[in-house]
Amino acid sequence: MESIYSTGKQDFGTAILDRSDRIEYLVSLVGSHLESTWNGKGVPLERICHYALVPGGKLFRPLLLLESAGAVGANIALVVPAAAGAEAGHVASLIHDDIIDGDTMRRGRPSVHAAFGRDDAIVAGDALIFYLFAALAECGERGVPDDRVAQAMAAVAAAGIDLCRGQSMEAQLCAGYVCDVPSYLEMIRLKTAALFRAACASGAILGGGPAEWCAALGSYGELLGSAFQIHDDLLAYTSDGDAMGKAVTSDITNQRLTLPFLLARELGGEPVANELDRHMRDSGDPAERLAAVSALVREAGGVAAATDAARGYAIRAVEVLDVLPESPSKETLSYFAQAAVNRCG
Amino acid sequence: MESIYSTGKQDFGTAILDRSDRIEYLVSLVGSHLESTWNGKGVPLERICHYALVPGGKLFRPLLLLESAGAVGANIALVVPAAAGAEAGHVASLIHDDIIDGDTMRRGRPSVHAAFGRDDAIVAGDALIFYLFAALAECGERGVPDDRVAQAMAAVAAAGIDLCRGQSMEAQLCAGYVCDVPSYLEMIRLKTAALFRAACASGAILGGGPAEWCAALGSYGELLGSAFQIHDDLLAYTSDGDAMGKAVTSDITNQRLTLPFLLARELGGEPVANELDRHMRDSGDPAERLAAVSALVREAGGVAAATDAARGYAIRAVEVLDVLPESPSKETLSYFAQAAVNRCG
Repeated sequence: MESIYSTGKQDFGTAILDRSDRIEYLVSLVGSHLESTWNGKGVPLERICHYALVPGGKLFRPLLLLESAGAVGANIALVVPAAAGAEAGHVASLIHDDIIDGDTMRRGRPSVHAAFGRDDAIVAGDALIFYLFAALAECGERGVPDDRVAQAMAAVAAAGIDLCRGQSMEAQLCAGYVCDVPSYLEMIRLKTAALFRAACASGAILGGGPAEWCAALGSYGELLGSAFQIHDDLLAYTSDGDAMGKAVTSDITNQRLTLPFLLARELGGEPVANELDRHMRDSGDPAERLAAVSALVREAGGVAAATDAARGYAIRAVEVLDVLPESPSKETLSYFAQAAVNRCG
Repeated sequence: MESIYSTGKQDFGTAILDRSDRIEYLVSLVGSHLESTWNGKGVPLERICHYALVPGGKLFRPLLLLESAGAVGANIALVVPAAAGAEAGHVASLIHDDIIDGDTMRRGRPSVHAAFGRDDAIVAGDALIFYLFAALAECGERGVPDDRVAQAMAAVAAAGIDLCRGQSMEAQLCAGYVCDVPSYLEMIRLKTAALFRAACASGAILGGGPAEWCAALGSYGELLGSAFQIHDDLLAYTSDGDAMGKAVTSDITNQRLTLPFLLARELGGEPVANELDRHMRDSGDPAERLAAVSALVREAGGVAAATDAARGYAIRAVEVLDVLPESPSKETLSYFAQAAVNRCG
């Protein structure tokens, strides 16, 4: 389905770039900004934040923010700080999550609390949340009007509270071990999709897009975020630890419920559900439990059904972009949703 | 010196209130706002944040924010959400601090992590940081112009990063056990005074004060914050656990350096310094070590010198208010600084 999209060339200064060059260029803008802001000098906090942010991950949330600004016709340079902030907010949640889950690896390296200790990791996460908002203020210094900055702050703050509500809901669901698919989908909408929504909405808002476009990009982000979380859930069934950058057994060790697992419980009927529950509650070797759970989930159709669910979100994400005029930015956003579908295949 | 200040009456609606009624009224506005925002219903996160925020502490930072808005002539009702947010930001730092320090009591009750566990406490602290900014957005909904909201966000975000830098600096100083008085004063300026500065500055900014008044109120907050932190340091030498709301031995257990201790090391010369260091590094009974340290610090003049330092900050805090016109709000702010001096006596 790749062919339904145009190639997506856009003029950045003097150069005409194709999509991969374009993405590389945008990533470099955000990476440079993060590196100059958190240069690793001074108090240990700077060093820890530098470690957490540089080299960056895929910088997917910043790309969404920049392309959402581009999709409403804005000068992308004005919103680069906000894009860096979006990554910082995401990394803050990873730092705190890794403490909570006891995950000692992240992006193929020791997680922040494993490298620097729990206490400094808590403080570094806090600092990066504050930086998320300091970065919006930086956009103001670059010329983004105050009304847009204030509106973006509102969107980002609301998403941050949603994120925390989602984490709390996840803990509640896993601890009580009562979870149906609709509750799960609401949980990931809060825990994961909210920050995607905020990245897209704030890019569009800072870029000065009309309300209808900003709302569409916010919806796109939320739908894409749910697709991505399900894709992430599927990784434990389709991938190894190297590809995940963290232990493939993390979900099972933390008794984290994922969509393939929940769908397999529903599709397989009581015998499968009981056996899955038994493995999940078991205290035996995580790798052996994961192997047993994987086989059951796959046989019961949980992997296939979760893949379909992710596809559904991604397709809707592309559809909500219809209100926007054609542009290389819109094309890249469509491509991201398309790629999410393909990765789930 | 109480008599140098007028009584401070101001009309709130129809009633003329004296200072204590005025403070009670402002506290009730903030308390109601916190209680209606975090009503304890829904996911566990709501319940935890409710526990952390209701009943509130002295709500001192909200009072500073409201009176700073009042001091520039603003309608205080417009900035009540920001005042609630200032308390939430402060409580967020307490929740995370208590995890780091292993303090199980706070405000005379189990601390949040003691009551709800570490994981939920981390997430609740994060949620309250996001709420700090959501609360600024609420002021916009009440009619505060966007440019003020954006400027207040910048001040609050910068202060939040300062807070984290200060916490990191404190950990570094205590761990390496190298600390001189100037480093200590810089550390408390970041760790404690920054949020006081942000409360006062954001109140003045949201209230639409001219730049000179906003800057003066920011300086007032920072000076008062340093006075308060030193006062807090002194409590371990002059008070018992009940008055502190947490274990009186917390500082010594966490090897936290305080100004009376550092000044005693300087004033007492090498023999006193060596003995103090020995007690601090000792792993014996905290209460016995505290008693020994207290006696030494007092004898060497550390308590008296720290009291003088706090007084100095408080006096300067009053002085920087000179640029503001007389008002009941200004009078209350002066009174707060005055009270800080008296409490340190």
